[in-house]
Amino acid sequence: MQVGKPILYSYFRSSCSWRVRIALALKNIDYETVAVNLTKDGGQQFSEGFQALNPMKQVPALKIDGITIGQSLAIIEYLEETRPTPRLLPRDPKKRAQVRMVSDLIASGIQPLQNLSVLKQVGQENQLTWAQQAITSGFNALEQILQSTAGRYCVGDEVSMADLCLAPQVANADRFKVDLTPYPTISRINKSLLALEAFHVSHPCRQPDTPPELRA
Amino acid sequence: MQVGKPILYSYFRSSCSWRVRIALALKNIDYETVAVNLTKDGGQQFSEGFQALNPMKQVPALKIDGITIGQSLAIIEYLEETRPTPRLLPRDPKKRAQVRMVSDLIASGIQPLQNLSVLKQVGQENQLTWAQQAITSGFNALEQILQSTAGRYCVGDEVSMADLCLAPQVANADRFKVDLTPYPTISRINKSLLALEAFHVSHPCRQPDTPPELRA
Repeated sequence: MQVGKPILYSYFRSSCSWRVRIALALKNIDYETVAVNLTKDGGQQFSEGFQALNPMKQVPALKIDGITIGQSLAIIEYLEETRPTPRLLPRDPKKRAQVRMVSDLIASGIQPLQNLSVLKQVGQENQLTWAQQAITSGFNALEQILQSTAGRYCVGDEVSMADLCLAPQVANADRFKVDLTPYPTISRINKSLLALEAFHVSHPCRQPDTPPELRA
Repeated sequence: MQVGKPILYSYFRSSCSWRVRIALALKNIDYETVAVNLTKDGGQQFSEGFQALNPMKQVPALKIDGITIGQSLAIIEYLEETRPTPRLLPRDPKKRAQVRMVSDLIASGIQPLQNLSVLKQVGQENQLTWAQQAITSGFNALEQILQSTAGRYCVGDEVSMADLCLAPQVANADRFKVDLTPYPTISRINKSLLALEAFHVSHPCRQPDTPPELRA
């Protein structure tokens, strides 16, 4: 089998896709983007072709090294194991546990509750309140945890997988008009992250599939 | 600091707690259980003492080696890194990616949508339908993925972290009366898992806090 450039199936606005785009940028991995528009044509993730690729009908999915991986954190852990530089998990197992705890808090405890398919089920009139409730509840916990783990970034002074989850989740919070005043640590770290090149180039407003009116 | 036995904050019925109990049993780690009753006293996870321990107000949390870790998969990854025998992640990075993909599919894609706090928000009359929808949607994808990854267990013939997520999620499916007929691979693997000692002793019906009428 010929193995070419990795292919990322991505949607510009998907926070989980953004996590992986940051990892690819940080690790300087050249890749192609295949845009999967989650709202056009009734949702391109429901197409037969895409379902065969990722039965969860979600982005991101990454074709790499002859395999296809779904689930953003599984993708990032694979990249970390096969392209370890720069590292996205600290050396110390206890710090690694903190990174994974923060990552999972966002990836299992916040994002799934405010993703597109759940909000559809909740119904248009309740979406905003539902999403705000999921995010503030998670951020209340996250702020408290980060106060003991954070340095410049989520865990100490090195960018880690936790930061790859944080910035996209804060962007979602912005979209859902969550007041970030009660979260000074989250806000401070997010600001530091957005100043980094890898977070900049991977940002939703700079993707091949970003609509012109949302580009920056 | 004196470091004693690990302490697991657990609720007998919590599927995420069960994941960790299986890991502890497989790795033969002696531990104490502190029961956190998620329904008694308005939810003991909301007590000030427990919130200080795990700001997410969720079980499980594990006190071990002088730190406290929340989030079941972060706990299991820590146990794997510090107590590697028997291994719960294969050696091969591609197989590890499959294990993590299946684990995350359940831990981020299914369980959070049918956990207690979400079902409370959904309201009593809609709970069953909501939970069934979350589980069948996830199981449709999982069945398809397992058909290409599974051997005797979720990924090949060795028990892995993915299996620690599978059996508890199938138990939740049972509780929510999900018809498992369309999921022969899931059902077959689950049956093999339940026959294993570590899954047996850690089962919700055999915990210190299991109510007498639910014990087996």
